[in-house]
Formats: sequence, C-alpha cells, structure tokens
Amino acid sequence: MDLPSKLLEKTVEYFESLPGVGRRTALRYALQLLKMPKDEANAFGEAISRLSKELKFCKVCHNISDHEICQICIHPKRNQNLICVVEDLRDLLAIEGTGQFFGVYHVLGGVISPMDGVGPSELTIDSLVTRIESGSVLEVLFALPATTEGDTTCFYIFKKLKNVEVIITSLARGVAVGNELQYTDEVTLGRSILGRLPFENSLRSH
Amino acid sequence: MDLPSKLLEKTVEYFESLPGVGRRTALRYALQLLKMPKDEANAFGEAISRLSKELKFCKVCHNISDHEICQICIHPKRNQNLICVVEDLRDLLAIEGTGQFFGVYHVLGGVISPMDGVGPSELTIDSLVTRIESGSVLEVLFALPATTEGDTTCFYIFKKLKNVEVIITSLARGVAVGNELQYTDEVTLGRSILGRLPFENSLRSH
Repeated sequence: MDLPSKLLEKTVEYFESLPGVGRRTALRYALQLLKMPKDEANAFGEAISRLSKELKFCKVCHNISDHEICQICIHPKRNQNLICVVEDLRDLLAIEGTGQFFGVYHVLGGVISPMDGVGPSELTIDSLVTRIESGSVLEVLFALPATTEGDTTCFYIFKKLKNVEVIITSLARGVAVGNELQYTDEVTLGRSILGRLPFENSLRSH
Repeated sequence: MDLPSKLLEKTVEYFESLPGVGRRTALRYALQLLKMPKDEANAFGEAISRLSKELKFCKVCHNISDHEICQICIHPKRNQNLICVVEDLRDLLAIEGTGQFFGVYHVLGGVISPMDGVGPSELTIDSLVTRIESGSVLEVLFALPATTEGDTTCFYIFKKLKNVEVIITSLARGVAVGNELQYTDEVTLGRSILGRLPFENSLRSH
C-alpha cells in the first residue's frame, strides 16, 4: 500500500508504532486528522511533542504528576508504611479503582524484559530499594503483571531486599470472582489450590 | 478515571478523538509515547502538526499528493474519460489494489451526512461537476460506501449531472465472492436478484 505523500507516510508510520495499531488503522487515524479543524490537529501534535518533554514525575513514587510530589504521596490519610509496586499508571489507576488500597505506590515504569531490551537499570528499582532502606516502610506489596516478566521483576527486587527487614507480599492469584471452575485455566486453578485459604478468611469479603 | 496530570489528560483527550479509540486505549497510546526516545516522540508530534498544515492535494482529483497533479492523474496510460468517484484515499487504495480500474479518480473527502454536519459544500462535488462539464469525460463511476449517506451522495451528484451528457454507473452490489447464500444479508441478496446478469457475463471473470 504505497501512499501518495511522504508526509502522510511518515505520520502513518508513527501511528503504527503505537501498541496494537496496524497499517490500516494508522491510515484511518491520519485521515481523521485531516477532517479535524487545522487548529485542533496542530494542538494535537503539540500536545504529543510536549508530553515527553514536559511531563513531570513524582520524586518519591515516580508516578506521573503535575507537582513535585504527587497527590497520593502527599495525602495525609495514606499509609506511608505500605508501598504497592506497580508497572505503570494504568495498573495504579486499576488498584485505586478498587477502593481497597490505602498505602502509597512505587511506579517501576515497566518490567524486566530482555526481549524488549528492558533491564533493571531502565526501571526505578534502585530508587525503590533506597526508599525502603531509608524509610519507615513495613510492607512492600508486589502488584506486577502475572507474566514471566512480572514474576522475574518481583524475584529481582525480592533478592535486592533480602538484607532489609520488610514484609514482602504479592497480590493473591486465584480463580476470578464470578468465574466458573471449568473455564479457569489449569495454572491459575493449580495456584488457587496451592494457595488455599481458611474458609473463614473468605467470609471477610462478604 | 482522573489522571494525575493536565498535560497527560489533554493528550489522552486528543487520542480519544480518533475513530474507535476509547479512554483506555487513548491512555495506552499516551503512555507508549513516554516509552519512546524523546526525539522520536517529538518528531511524532511535529509530523501530526505538519500534516494538516502542509499536506497538498491534487488540483484535479483532490487526492493527497506531494505534487500539484498526482501520479495517477498525470499517468499517460490512465483513461482520462472515466472518472471513479470515491470517498477518500482508503477507498482509492482499495480500488487500485484490485488492478481492475484504469481510469482516473475524484476524491470527495467524505459523504453527505447531515448528522455529522457534512453538507455538499464541504465536499469536492462542485469541482467534480465542473470537471465533467468542461472535459471529455464519458463515464462517471460511483464507488461510494453502500450506506444511506453514500446513496444520498450518489443521488445528489446524479441530480447535479442531469443536464450533462455522460454515462453514470455505480459499483455492482451483490453476493460477495466466496460467500454462502444463507449467510448473506437479505438486502444484499434481494439486490443481487434484482440486478441479476446473463450467465455468460459471469464467465468473463474466470
């Protein structure tokens, strides 16, 4: 599919670099830009250019923030002794959405993935270790993706913290609420058997 | 889902204005920008800003083009007497992909859609009529979407051309090649009965 303009071709290629966007969708996005008022399309481009140049991160937890310290880290009612380690803002928002977590966060900015060229030094792991070593942190809760990369990252941080006195926990893995057993994958079902709980614990959530 | 930065919020809103992009996907795109090298993210934004400011259109057929007259209009082997009317570049590329069309195009830039605030004056219809009236055009082929808006646009142009001596044709509607009859929708099947052809015609395509 040869495009009749180099400028269009370049824009389509950039859109293709977004996750899950193929060439057809990228072209659809680019043509949509031409239907927008010119001012708006221009402002769209400027917002993208400014984003990575000007976006600030919380100095404590590395979450995206317009302030030096983010609203969560600075909140007087959040428990500073409990740090939840997440991959990025989307997972943080998902956890905030549950209304079940009242500690603070640490945003890694990714997970260790040699295939994608992401090593520990690309992430905010050192900052997390320093934060735990120097502070009054009692518990670190890993809330990373349930993938090989997520598990590797958890294990890497776990080893880094082996000489630090802190409780290290991880999100419970098991059968999702509302799921039928016969449709739950075997690995998850297996882990939910290994991690079985006293029945009275499950009553707490009702 | 309140985002912790106004700059991020603005970028996410712009991404949401793209077709088929919801808030979650828009946030995913915005966070991907932060993983890109800063130079690249900046160039992405600049490409978008430049696109609607600098993109040129062929003076004859209104297709996107880096030159004053596009490669198709200027091609010596294309039949200038046959104009295919399309909505946008994507449909033009689809027709070019068939290798079955050797005429030239006229890109409308949309279809008449009062619901979306698109009237005939937003499209290049006047330019098409002028082109047909002043030129040596023998046939106009409507290749607009098979929707109410597409049909309305065809009918509008058809009325505009009622005093011009030109053959007006439309893409054949019917059962798609390879489709089973029982899964073809009733309207399409009905139109393929009304538009039935001598069997010997169908032999041509084999």
